[in-house]
Amino acid sequence: MKKLINSADTVIVDSLTGLAAAHPDLRVDVEGRVVYRAEGPRQGKVGLVSGGGSGHEPLHAGFVGYGMLDAACPGEIFTSPVPDQMIAASKAVNGGAGVLHIVKNYTGDVLNFEMAAELCAEEGVEVATVLVDDDVAVRDSLYTAGRRGTGATVFVEKIAGALAETGATLAEVAAVGKEVNARSRSFGVALSACTTPASGKPTFDLGADEIELGIGIHGEPGRTRASTAPAREIVRTAMDAINEDMPLSGDTLVMVNGMGGTPLIELYIVFAEVDAYLREHGASTARSLVGNYITSLDMQGFSVTVCRLTDELTRLWDAPVQTPGLRWGR
Amino acid sequence: MKKLINSADTVIVDSLTGLAAAHPDLRVDVEGRVVYRAEGPRQGKVGLVSGGGSGHEPLHAGFVGYGMLDAACPGEIFTSPVPDQMIAASKAVNGGAGVLHIVKNYTGDVLNFEMAAELCAEEGVEVATVLVDDDVAVRDSLYTAGRRGTGATVFVEKIAGALAETGATLAEVAAVGKEVNARSRSFGVALSACTTPASGKPTFDLGADEIELGIGIHGEPGRTRASTAPAREIVRTAMDAINEDMPLSGDTLVMVNGMGGTPLIELYIVFAEVDAYLREHGASTARSLVGNYITSLDMQGFSVTVCRLTDELTRLWDAPVQTPGLRWGR
Repeated sequence: MKKLINSADTVIVDSLTGLAAAHPDLRVDVEGRVVYRAEGPRQGKVGLVSGGGSGHEPLHAGFVGYGMLDAACPGEIFTSPVPDQMIAASKAVNGGAGVLHIVKNYTGDVLNFEMAAELCAEEGVEVATVLVDDDVAVRDSLYTAGRRGTGATVFVEKIAGALAETGATLAEVAAVGKEVNARSRSFGVALSACTTPASGKPTFDLGADEIELGIGIHGEPGRTRASTAPAREIVRTAMDAINEDMPLSGDTLVMVNGMGGTPLIELYIVFAEVDAYLREHGASTARSLVGNYITSLDMQGFSVTVCRLTDELTRLWDAPVQTPGLRWGR
Repeated sequence: MKKLINSADTVIVDSLTGLAAAHPDLRVDVEGRVVYRAEGPRQGKVGLVSGGGSGHEPLHAGFVGYGMLDAACPGEIFTSPVPDQMIAASKAVNGGAGVLHIVKNYTGDVLNFEMAAELCAEEGVEVATVLVDDDVAVRDSLYTAGRRGTGATVFVEKIAGALAETGATLAEVAAVGKEVNARSRSFGVALSACTTPASGKPTFDLGADEIELGIGIHGEPGRTRASTAPAREIVRTAMDAINEDMPLSGDTLVMVNGMGGTPLIELYIVFAEVDAYLREHGASTARSLVGNYITSLDMQGFSVTVCRLTDELTRLWDAPVQTPGLRWGR
């Protein structure tokens, strides 16, 4: 295994140290493993907290900042953070209007965020939760009961974050987060496995000409293995899966996301095919992201996430955001 | 070879099609292979044109937009664009104040941009050129007489682009571009080779525990092969090479750049070590970029670029920019 690390034991601490050095707008509690906005909570604003296993950068810590999250709790690689992190984060970002937890649907994350929410409530911090479960590939997978939470997390964090900046109530911010999740679907494809620093070995084996259709962001199995194929065919498989689950129509927000090891030139080729598919099906790409947003270490592959927009969701998507991973309009 | 492409022959066209679909702020001449700002030239503003082989995305097309380039000319993968592209771009972006060509020092690019500049002059378009040659690793390499142009290209495009927006003259914009290049140094490290779509094979062989110190962005050989080592040691080797060539001091602008296949979590680990090195040597990281900015397809590895800032360069770096690859402040 060749990786740019000092040791498998210090990956999270060393990476958080770099994050802190690179982004003075963030306050990073390296020991406690929570990443905050440097300016602290704003009175009357709902606080947004997310978190999950590391290895998906820039998610979540790279989405802390104006217009998005107030704090993120990174766990070990592909391992849920613990309730202590979530409680510390929630208390610190509470400006009196309550705190929204944005949770990807993996059993460990769900249980730990539930426990944290209960303990926060006992301490007088009101918590609401949005559970993200947008991945149409499989139901009940390794680590997950129900659908996995993947790319829609980025949309939920951005759009709920934008609404929170307007002074909306916790109920309103939670409702828009749930609406985004309900209107979003994802599908992932792996060309290669990823290698965790701790194991030093690929998380699964793929043949020289094989791809995994419906891959999870931790290398969980998808729907099927297939022979590699032109991008157009691979995209059609992914988009058919989304379209069968949620018929595509109208204006959409589309993310073509790299899994960490995929060149950007290939992601734009994938995006061209996604855009063509949407137009063929009477929908359109009104807004888009192309790049690495929710990754799986060094995995080669992509995921596509589609959200059927409303005027309000479009307005919130366009609102200013200022984070390491997403930044515009301000 | 597994890649998200339709065929090796259509990589550039398909990718440009995706770029056009994703970024309505750009006007992409897919057939002519030039990427422009959609709004066209501004009278009295110096036009900035760059270009080079594809495979380094987001460079260059991803840096077209307000505050940076006016046009970019993508060649085939790792192959210079042709003078016709550069001439078309230069004539189209000329707002009467002349055009700056930003050229990475590779023999093919240099010859083609020289020919284009001569033909532009014959047609009454004044052209100045900034040659970028910041890579301290080797002198006279495959494809290059003298030093290779790498990460400093991003700094030159950003800072010269910011000055051009103020209405500065061609001579002033060229001078600041040259100043940025003169104050910048880079060094790259490969953990793996990259694979071009046309060849389908890695561009060179590296042993299971070997890394290449001083790698070029096309997989050109570096200074030496070494056994893989902790990030701290690898960074020290890279930074020593930079510091020996240009003693580090004062405020610096630092880019820790991923080669395309490197997880962001590792780039932050590298950044932490670079930042510590600078502080140990009496310098500081005043501004930074951590991510994929000048890549080498799917290569795993990183490059570090350091620019010794002045107050003026810092102000120009901070100025608003609105491109697919860099966006802030507006």
